[in-house]
Amino acid sequence: MTGRRIARIAHPGGVHHATVEPDGYALIADPFAKHLRHNGIVVPTRDARLLAPVAPRTVVGMAHNTGPTDRQLPPQAFLKPVTTVTGPGAPIPLPTGIGRVDAEAELAVVIGCTATRLTLSNAAEHILGVTIANDVTARDLQQSDPLWFAAKSFDAWTPLGPWIATGLDPDDLAIGLQVDDVDLQAAGTADLARSVLECLVYVTSVLTLHPGDVVLTGAPGASAAITVGSTVVAAIAGVGELQNPVTATDDQREVA
Amino acid sequence: MTGRRIARIAHPGGVHHATVEPDGYALIADPFAKHLRHNGIVVPTRDARLLAPVAPRTVVGMAHNTGPTDRQLPPQAFLKPVTTVTGPGAPIPLPTGIGRVDAEAELAVVIGCTATRLTLSNAAEHILGVTIANDVTARDLQQSDPLWFAAKSFDAWTPLGPWIATGLDPDDLAIGLQVDDVDLQAAGTADLARSVLECLVYVTSVLTLHPGDVVLTGAPGASAAITVGSTVVAAIAGVGELQNPVTATDDQREVA
Repeated sequence: MTGRRIARIAHPGGVHHATVEPDGYALIADPFAKHLRHNGIVVPTRDARLLAPVAPRTVVGMAHNTGPTDRQLPPQAFLKPVTTVTGPGAPIPLPTGIGRVDAEAELAVVIGCTATRLTLSNAAEHILGVTIANDVTARDLQQSDPLWFAAKSFDAWTPLGPWIATGLDPDDLAIGLQVDDVDLQAAGTADLARSVLECLVYVTSVLTLHPGDVVLTGAPGASAAITVGSTVVAAIAGVGELQNPVTATDDQREVA
Repeated sequence: MTGRRIARIAHPGGVHHATVEPDGYALIADPFAKHLRHNGIVVPTRDARLLAPVAPRTVVGMAHNTGPTDRQLPPQAFLKPVTTVTGPGAPIPLPTGIGRVDAEAELAVVIGCTATRLTLSNAAEHILGVTIANDVTARDLQQSDPLWFAAKSFDAWTPLGPWIATGLDPDDLAIGLQVDDVDLQAAGTADLARSVLECLVYVTSVLTLHPGDVVLTGAPGASAAITVGSTVVAAIAGVGELQNPVTATDDQREVA
């Protein structure tokens, strides 16, 4: 399966996975099936709202995974709770008094089939595709929060989307980040300390990943401070753009 | 709802929640309903196998939560992936060469209804009940794994069970731990640095907990090294005992 875009949409008929087509979203029953099967329904673009393209049970992020010096450290990962997952356009709520909060644009790998103790030679077969993640992080909180629980776990702090792109080479994709129309970095997955497949080998040496689970591969570029009222756009060449507004915590939240 | 024991069982008719009765397991449709409703089916004890009493989407543990000195540190939590959850009697697999691995007997709180930014006055209403957790931890790995990802995240490293007990005072329960018939600690939730309700207030100041989510409140007693072939029993007065064998990783695993 190459070159598809697989979205998850909310529309008057419910919540469904679909492939992205010129005339709308063509519904599919199972995004993880070996051969995608359309059911004949196409939802016009204007009638649909994009959600996070998967509802993972496990979200793992890679820590310190930028540049050759990080390669000299042992690999290190962290977990984000599933309550952080939200979709394109959904608000990123910031609690008051939390100090500096950064957006981090990252390539996110979406797992296609059950993955345990992968090797470099079989890891690629376990990837359904890639999407864009914004790994929102409370930078100041990390000082008093050595396990990064509070720093990474606020509700809706992992926007994902806009869809899953299949058939791309994950190790050579340009990544961009914009806050309020200012470009803040130019980088790419080639700048990661460990390749996407190496990340999957490490993570699955510890835990089993299941279809729809997500691995954030690390931010190869600079992160950018965000504040209430900001609009953040994370972009990956060949995938698209993930745009989210930043709001105060008590603003109404959308459900992913 | 007071004084019930709510289990989750696998039996010839499927996987269901049930209350524990003298003559077997009385099936219920929804363990989170305000009034439990039995459907009239009672599964004889010999026909059922106990599973982890919930299938959480989020599992949070409290770090350094023992004794008055820990109270002087800011609260600190960590996440365990849902793939760590397993049931009574299920094996705890140890990878080879992992060094010292400890069992930690802890009170686990099971959330009954959606919980966001709880306060000390409303937190208790959001608790369905309590169960026993074994927060298996790779002690040596923690040295090179500052975020505790590998140290806490191996598959089936959070046995839960044997059931959820409702109507207990969570702040005054004796906790015991046995490895191979040797008693290794005598402690209780009264020895925690922060009370169960204080833990919930802290965790929900960051993320929203949903029905079935689990908070491990910290190990108030000594932890105990386990090795392949050990049998571990964690016990909480008024709840029961959670027993698990320790196996090598490649032994067959049961699904929670």
